[in-house]
Amino acid sequence: MRVSVYRKEHFNAAHRLHSNSLNDLENKTVFGKCNNENFHGHNYELVVRVTGEVDPITGYVIDMKVLSDVIKEFILNKFDHRNLNLDTEEFKNLNPTAENIAVVVWDILSKQLDKKYTFKVWLYETERNFVEYPAAD
Amino acid sequence: MRVSVYRKEHFNAAHRLHSNSLNDLENKTVFGKCNNENFHGHNYELVVRVTGEVDPITGYVIDMKVLSDVIKEFILNKFDHRNLNLDTEEFKNLNPTAENIAVVVWDILSKQLDKKYTFKVWLYETERNFVEYPAAD
Amino acid sequence: MRVSVYRKEHFNAAHRLHSNSLNDLENKTVFGKCNNENFHGHNYELVVRVTGEVDPITGYVIDMKVLSDVIKEFILNKFDHRNLNLDTEEFKNLNPTAENIAVVVWDILSKQLDKKYTFKVWLYETERNFVEYPAAD
Amino acid sequence: MRVSVYRKEHFNAAHRLHSNSLNDLENKTVFGKCNNENFHGHNYELVVRVTGEVDPITGYVIDMKVLSDVIKEFILNKFDHRNLNLDTEEFKNLNPTAENIAVVVWDILSKQLDKKYTFKVWLYETERNFVEYPAAD
Amino acid sequence: MRVSVYRKEHFNAAHRLHSNSLNDLENKTVFGKCNNENFHGHNYELVVRVTGEVDPITGYVIDMKVLSDVIKEFILNKFDHRNLNLDTEEFKNLNPTAENIAVVVWDILSKQLDKKYTFKVWLYETERNFVEYPAAD
Amino acid sequence: MRVSVYRKEHFNAAHRLHSNSLNDLENKTVFGKCNNENFHGHNYELVVRVTGEVDPITGYVIDMKVLSDVIKEFILNKFDHRNLNLDTEEFKNLNPTAENIAVVVWDILSKQLDKKYTFKVWLYETERNFVEYPAAD
Repeated sequence: MRVSVYRKEHFNAAHRLHSNSLNDLENKTVFGKCNNENFHGHNYELVVRVTGEVDPITGYVIDMKVLSDVIKEFILNKFDHRNLNLDTEEFKNLNPTAENIAVVVWDILSKQLDKKYTFKVWLYETERNFVEYPAAD
Repeated sequence: MRVSVYRKEHFNAAHRLHSNSLNDLENKTVFGKCNNENFHGHNYELVVRVTGEVDPITGYVIDMKVLSDVIKEFILNKFDHRNLNLDTEEFKNLNPTAENIAVVVWDILSKQLDKKYTFKVWLYETERNFVEYPAAD
Repeated sequence: MRVSVYRKEHFNAAHRLHSNSLNDLENKTVFGKCNNENFHGHNYELVVRVTGEVDPITGYVIDMKVLSDVIKEFILNKFDHRNLNLDTEEFKNLNPTAENIAVVVWDILSKQLDKKYTFKVWLYETERNFVEYPAAD
Repeated sequence: MRVSVYRKEHFNAAHRLHSNSLNDLENKTVFGKCNNENFHGHNYELVVRVTGEVDPITGYVIDMKVLSDVIKEFILNKFDHRNLNLDTEEFKNLNPTAENIAVVVWDILSKQLDKKYTFKVWLYETERNFVEYPAAD
Repeated sequence: MRVSVYRKEHFNAAHRLHSNSLNDLENKTVFGKCNNENFHGHNYELVVRVTGEVDPITGYVIDMKVLSDVIKEFILNKFDHRNLNLDTEEFKNLNPTAENIAVVVWDILSKQLDKKYTFKVWLYETERNFVEYPAAD
Repeated sequence: MRVSVYRKEHFNAAHRLHSNSLNDLENKTVFGKCNNENFHGHNYELVVRVTGEVDPITGYVIDMKVLSDVIKEFILNKFDHRNLNLDTEEFKNLNPTAENIAVVVWDILSKQLDKKYTFKVWLYETERNFVEYPAAD
């Protein structure tokens, strides 16, 4: 009996959209006000979905407390109250778009979660803009 | 690397559920107070999900500003602050149920979005009633 | 020991902003797309706050079920799934702005609620536009 | 033309996480404060998604009022304002985790919904913890 | 320069509405399904508003972290994942209506918060039922 | 007939809590991770409440479109997608706590809104931390 469980966490971070593959004018043209050299920021909401068998003893797919702790230790400790461009190794040379953040989060979690699970992440940059990785189809 | 991105927009419209294939009594029976001949209305929330490759230069699947502008130009301009039954060609002869609105929205967007993308829409008629097209399974 | 209690209800209605004191051009200028002659609509959220003494026997200021039933009987029965301009006596000659709806709702409830209570209403036309009556100050 | 429709309902219930396959110390260790012998409780939000063909006459996949009534009669009547462990047959010998509740809800609904539909449930125990059954993948 | 600051916390608890001043039949009549002898429960949301002078050095009325910690230590530690009727001294002989819980919360906090502040609490039993103490007017 | 109307807007900004009246160690001690020298950020939600007489001709206290435009021109243009500490005159020498931002917003709006109105602002730094100015009491 397989069930999917979801855990929602949040972090607050500064970032700036800027691609090393583009010159300054191109960056300004493509990213507009999101390219502001002094950064802006977001309350990011992160939803992690984990799918697996329900343990017949506990009735859990995964202990939500454990899942929450993994997210806090490996994602929030790294990104919360940080500047994604300046304070993290991951985005030193990678543009911190919502798409790229979601992929980075997934990669980090994939090293921490038991291989018996499949999992997916949603990252909300605002209430109206959000992304899903791996892609829905 | 494929990612799905979501954009949420809203519009306020009047409508009335009424099927040309039913007589007045049948319409009243099937649609109840939603059949009120003088219309009622909703704050519709529209979520559009677009799936595609992340551009390695920009880190975008699609520029959310562009996606938002497409939705505004082709959907909101047509439906926002309108009477779906009286003011739109699409629902002159089609009952504006949430199901039918979602299909109409998808059809309109399919002519505007690049064929390299797959996409899907969710339409919230209220916080408690919403639909998804194409269907989930 | 006085406490304030709140009950939230909702109704879906069509309306059109149009003032009998203005001509057509003025109405168009002042109300823009809200003046659409074929109406538009909203999911209205109504919050009613009732203040009074906590009954030492029940621990209630007012039974929320009773408050909810009063709102349903006298407000929702009148406005839900209706056209405010065409289907209600109250707005036959009164422009159904959020301000005016709130005042009308308050007046109706004032005839139903025990005089030992003071009360106030908030009406949400959208998540971003809402009003309060009586005024906050 | 297939569309998925969603209906959201809620119920308030008490429960306690406790597995008959574990001894008291193990239960305390695994479930922590959720094992409190005097119970705690939640405002559960239940979302049911039904997928099927849009009826060309009505424009409905399923009448939302009918779907809502089925959920109310067979799920809310059983669980709302109840103690899941003490007041329901289903959880007399089954630990009422969110995972197990979702499976039980699905099983009950599967006996009531027409076989022409496929359907799925999401159960929100809190805004931050929720589950989906059948599993997403 | 006085500003009001708000902090929102939540706790999950079981309770039963039952007044010692009423007999069983009266309790059943007044409280209905909320009187269920095996309890039900809620995700309570608690909002605490603190008003005071903005400290010209820090720009804070009160450090939100400190306010959050006080609420966690004195309110959540006592009520979260508990049965209000059985597990707390406060509601051994007091009916745990939202009104009474709000008053009890306020009384507890009044012993912990500096007298230079004025403060008020809102308690949400559900999204649609909530209370405020001290009363709004 | 006086009514209060509310308009909600949002902006995304980076900031860092840092007081010029404290040394580095004190700043670190008082503001913790909010003092991060490379900034973090938020999705700020701003609610402006305006109180006045309902115009008997229009049924408006103030045209919400006008109110929204004033907020956009004088607040969002200044703060949205900016670094509050580096990009704005107002916070060059003022710590951008939620308290101080609310006061600054109020001061700016007070020069734009007609003196016949009274008004107040709420600033949400997160869903769980928000402030109100002028103070509630």
